[in-house]
Amino acid sequence: MSEQAIVVFKPSGRVIEVQVGTLLSDAAVRAGIDIAMPCGGQGRCGRCLVQVEYGEVARKPSTHLSSADVEKGHALACLTVIKGNVVVVVPTKEEVVRRVSVEAKAEKIALPVVCEWQREPGIQKCFVQMEPPSLMDNTNDADRLKRALAVEYDVRDLIVELPMLQELARTLREADWAVTAVLERQNWGPEDLPSRLIGLLPGDCTATSYGLAVDIGTTTVTVYLTDLLTTEVMDIASAYNAQISCGEDVISRIVYAQKGDGLQHLQRLIIKTINELLAELASRNRIDLREMNEMVVAGNTTMIHLFLGLDPMYIRVEPYIPTVNLPPPVLASELGISINPHASVDCIPGVGAYVGGDISAGVLSSRLFQTDKLTLFIDVGTNGEIVLGNNDWLICCACSAGPAFEGAGVRYGMRATAGAIEDVWINRETLEPRYQTIGNLPPRGICGSGMIALLAEMFVAGVLDKRGKVRRDLPTARVRTGQHGGEYVVVWADETTIGKDIVLSEVDVENLIRTKAAIYAGFSVLVRNVGLNLADVEQVLIGGSFGRYINVEKAIQIGLLPDMPWDRFKYLGNTSALGAYTTLLCSDMRRQVVEIAGKMTYLELSADNSFYEEFMSAMFLPHTDEASFPSVALALESRHD
Amino acid sequence: MSEQAIVVFKPSGRVIEVQVGTLLSDAAVRAGIDIAMPCGGQGRCGRCLVQVEYGEVARKPSTHLSSADVEKGHALACLTVIKGNVVVVVPTKEEVVRRVSVEAKAEKIALPVVCEWQREPGIQKCFVQMEPPSLMDNTNDADRLKRALAVEYDVRDLIVELPMLQELARTLREADWAVTAVLERQNWGPEDLPSRLIGLLPGDCTATSYGLAVDIGTTTVTVYLTDLLTTEVMDIASAYNAQISCGEDVISRIVYAQKGDGLQHLQRLIIKTINELLAELASRNRIDLREMNEMVVAGNTTMIHLFLGLDPMYIRVEPYIPTVNLPPPVLASELGISINPHASVDCIPGVGAYVGGDISAGVLSSRLFQTDKLTLFIDVGTNGEIVLGNNDWLICCACSAGPAFEGAGVRYGMRATAGAIEDVWINRETLEPRYQTIGNLPPRGICGSGMIALLAEMFVAGVLDKRGKVRRDLPTARVRTGQHGGEYVVVWADETTIGKDIVLSEVDVENLIRTKAAIYAGFSVLVRNVGLNLADVEQVLIGGSFGRYINVEKAIQIGLLPDMPWDRFKYLGNTSALGAYTTLLCSDMRRQVVEIAGKMTYLELSADNSFYEEFMSAMFLPHTDEASFPSVALALESRHD
Repeated sequence: MSEQAIVVFKPSGRVIEVQVGTLLSDAAVRAGIDIAMPCGGQGRCGRCLVQVEYGEVARKPSTHLSSADVEKGHALACLTVIKGNVVVVVPTKEEVVRRVSVEAKAEKIALPVVCEWQREPGIQKCFVQMEPPSLMDNTNDADRLKRALAVEYDVRDLIVELPMLQELARTLREADWAVTAVLERQNWGPEDLPSRLIGLLPGDCTATSYGLAVDIGTTTVTVYLTDLLTTEVMDIASAYNAQISCGEDVISRIVYAQKGDGLQHLQRLIIKTINELLAELASRNRIDLREMNEMVVAGNTTMIHLFLGLDPMYIRVEPYIPTVNLPPPVLASELGISINPHASVDCIPGVGAYVGGDISAGVLSSRLFQTDKLTLFIDVGTNGEIVLGNNDWLICCACSAGPAFEGAGVRYGMRATAGAIEDVWINRETLEPRYQTIGNLPPRGICGSGMIALLAEMFVAGVLDKRGKVRRDLPTARVRTGQHGGEYVVVWADETTIGKDIVLSEVDVENLIRTKAAIYAGFSVLVRNVGLNLADVEQVLIGGSFGRYINVEKAIQIGLLPDMPWDRFKYLGNTSALGAYTTLLCSDMRRQVVEIAGKMTYLELSADNSFYEEFMSAMFLPHTDEASFPSVALALESRHD
Repeated sequence: MSEQAIVVFKPSGRVIEVQVGTLLSDAAVRAGIDIAMPCGGQGRCGRCLVQVEYGEVARKPSTHLSSADVEKGHALACLTVIKGNVVVVVPTKEEVVRRVSVEAKAEKIALPVVCEWQREPGIQKCFVQMEPPSLMDNTNDADRLKRALAVEYDVRDLIVELPMLQELARTLREADWAVTAVLERQNWGPEDLPSRLIGLLPGDCTATSYGLAVDIGTTTVTVYLTDLLTTEVMDIASAYNAQISCGEDVISRIVYAQKGDGLQHLQRLIIKTINELLAELASRNRIDLREMNEMVVAGNTTMIHLFLGLDPMYIRVEPYIPTVNLPPPVLASELGISINPHASVDCIPGVGAYVGGDISAGVLSSRLFQTDKLTLFIDVGTNGEIVLGNNDWLICCACSAGPAFEGAGVRYGMRATAGAIEDVWINRETLEPRYQTIGNLPPRGICGSGMIALLAEMFVAGVLDKRGKVRRDLPTARVRTGQHGGEYVVVWADETTIGKDIVLSEVDVENLIRTKAAIYAGFSVLVRNVGLNLADVEQVLIGGSFGRYINVEKAIQIGLLPDMPWDRFKYLGNTSALGAYTTLLCSDMRRQVVEIAGKMTYLELSADNSFYEEFMSAMFLPHTDEASFPSVALALESRHD
């Protein structure tokens, strides 16, 4: 008779007796405990996370569980075997959600800590108590202030522009000559320029100082409210870029900008989006908007052009020329950003039409520019921007991947919003799918990570052949011939909120393959261009908010990412916002990011003959060259076991 | 029988026979030739200028005739004796007027020629023809332009601000990559800063380049339109400062600025005045306003504060503190000046509340800062600003002289406009006056130079005693007792346009004496302050448009100017506008004027104990210390001959 074990589930307190060797997930099902298992207990989604508080279990290995997680007692219920009496804590649904968001926030905030940089914000607040003027000392107001700042803070050659002068006489006297001067160091350039006076506050206001790091994505805008004294991120707010109403991708925005006052309209929309986020942050943290004294902005080249009111027209047409790569600092008042009107808004420099400041920011925050490992950095969004290099050299390109992963060109594709299918698992035998939607709502469509998962599952389960064609001879009603050729039904109409079967057709598959092929060809061309092979790459850093949700295993299975050990891949989250944050806090990093943008060699793929060849080779699942994808070959073999 | 001579008057052709030894003026009267003789032929006004084309004459010496004038054949009719047959050219009235204005213009334009400075305007126009971008050379627009300017003109670190970037892409392409870049050197400071792009014009526009030098006077605003290529003044326009409607002197303007939006209103008025002058110059010279690429402005501290919208309140109250002495450069668009909106408007730095940029400009254009002669520089306006020094040191002060010479505090005082009595001569025997009005119109009042002349004449003719009291025992109806004590009638009511006797009363005299005493006390205190005497002063430079009309002899007679040989006095005209012009054209002079303002020691007279004493001593005609005014003593003696 096999050994029995007692399992206690917390916080419900439910107790069940099971055989030793039972899976924790099976025990939970039998005890009536609701554990999320969207992959159907195949050990592939990582959502059935629990904590083993007491007792012995055996965990099967999983990419979703780090050794640190194991030390904390974490376990995936479907991959954990009960070895004796145990106490298991099952997080509530709210806890799962909170944990995910707290981790995301922790990741964002913690990452820069590992960077090797001095925190030295560009904003300096100096309190000075001056002697009032007299007939014996009748220096003018501006020089009196400068003198005090020179004596007490060693500030030299302070620049005091007209708008500040216009308030000076009154403020000094109302404050009885005790004021806090807000100074901005102008240190984007190679040399140290004099500081600029951007605020003058009565009394001692040196106890607080705030700055903002902004990532303007084509889809999402994210703002980090930063305490410039502790250098910590105090709060994060994000929202859709209101420009979406004028086009979902950069190309359609550029087209929109050509119509009438389209450019001005797009500029107003992004300023509005940012101002709304600022108002939210100010209200939530009880900070006066005028106390925010600096803003650093990262974004792709088109987003930055629209933000600054620069005509993006020539970004779109060959030979793809932006107006500027390193935009000059601009005053908040010039743009209508509702912070201290004298504050500077600095845009992180880009490299070219399709490798923007968001990528320079990514290279900065990912520390790619400091590592001696050969590193591939990828930011997957509308386009895939790729950087290869190390602390010595950097080469980059942009693959005109198209917005398939963002939902365009795929019939049931959608952005990653509530009701989007974000992960899919297809049973190898029954070919029945299980899926996970954002917000656990009834499905409306499929977002980027869902498409990658679905494509990989369909391929590995044998629904698709290597050319991306649907096998018609399969014993399931889910595979059928539709308007766009063969298709696979992920969700039947009655389970959806749209009242239609959600399918992936051969046409959709072709678009997705085209996209992933462009990105993979980008990797190949970059690596070949410097005389190396993909196998020489020591690490792959994945940035961009989309990147955070990519399942590496599945991305390799479709040939989007190169086949290498999973531990070489690192998710970095929103590297663009992090780069803006880093730049905001450190003048040395500010100079570094200018240097990074300047030293990145931009490879224009449309001018590179080998790109088309590599692209065609990648138009298969996973690739023409199957030998480059050994792990995929293994997975396909195991299917037939 | 005495010898006869034939006199031919041109251009009328009239011929008369006179005795050798006859005065030219008498001959003209007998021939019925109309020669202007406002002083009644006393040889004191210099207005009866003629040209002796042929023949021998004997000229009595006159301060109104230089040896250069004599070489040209010029002669004053009332001081010239006929020695034989002569041909004399009598200028028409129009010619007199034109001659005066041409001379004035020539003086303004010619003066800087004698300065030792390199003409190196801050505006540089660079034509570049670029290769259009291609896939092989896909540099962004801003960097492509910078690269071309660096290669062809050695321009480094060019600053291209947002408003210029916003036009860049379109302009470059419309111009087919052949453009003229307008660059501004930023060279007010001690170091060479990078240039700033302020214009981009299609094609080659390097054949023209214009700049503006502006003098903002409390009363009059003057603009010099300057060709930056030839460095010549092309045209001059001037008009009353429209702020006059809000107060005639700086104090009443400051008071006005405190009411409601008074400051904004005053700023709008001065901008309006300048824009109207610019429109006049642009239209007259057929230049597009947007082709004017730089403006340098000189003015007193209050005028500059109002021009920039800076609160002048604390200039008025002890301890008299301006907001700023060296204002930062401001964009034309920021102020609403209707030239190239990206052009810089630079204000010449001042020294203190009552020694402004107009005086720094005067020290610059008068070359006081370059001479090794001990020099006194005076700019007589509402206040008398005085500078003493040489190429080694400079000390300055402002005398709260009050606006008596500008017409305030003197019952029939008025500004120097049409109908103002500008010069007066009183016959020593009859005590009958002759006068000269501006525009030769019937008199309306007395302007500054007229008041100086009248005061001097009344004193020297014996109408006034040294305390400024009217002698009541004189045998003329022109001296009488009026409402304000003793008074002298300059014009009977029926000769005026105001229908009243124009008089100078003892109260008026007291105000004028107070004013002249303040200025003279200023001289004395400055000179004493550095351990010297007025007699050590090697030259006296008189600036300001008012200064141009001061009669040195009469100004000495009332004790306004120190008694020294007339050849030590030099009229320099509008030294403020000239200083702005010099600064506009020469970057070295631009640095010099900053240095001048910085090195001038400002002596606050209200904090100087000796000022009151000197002032009281000067409250006499010409002064308590008669020994300091030997030439006046001589004139008084000659009266009794």
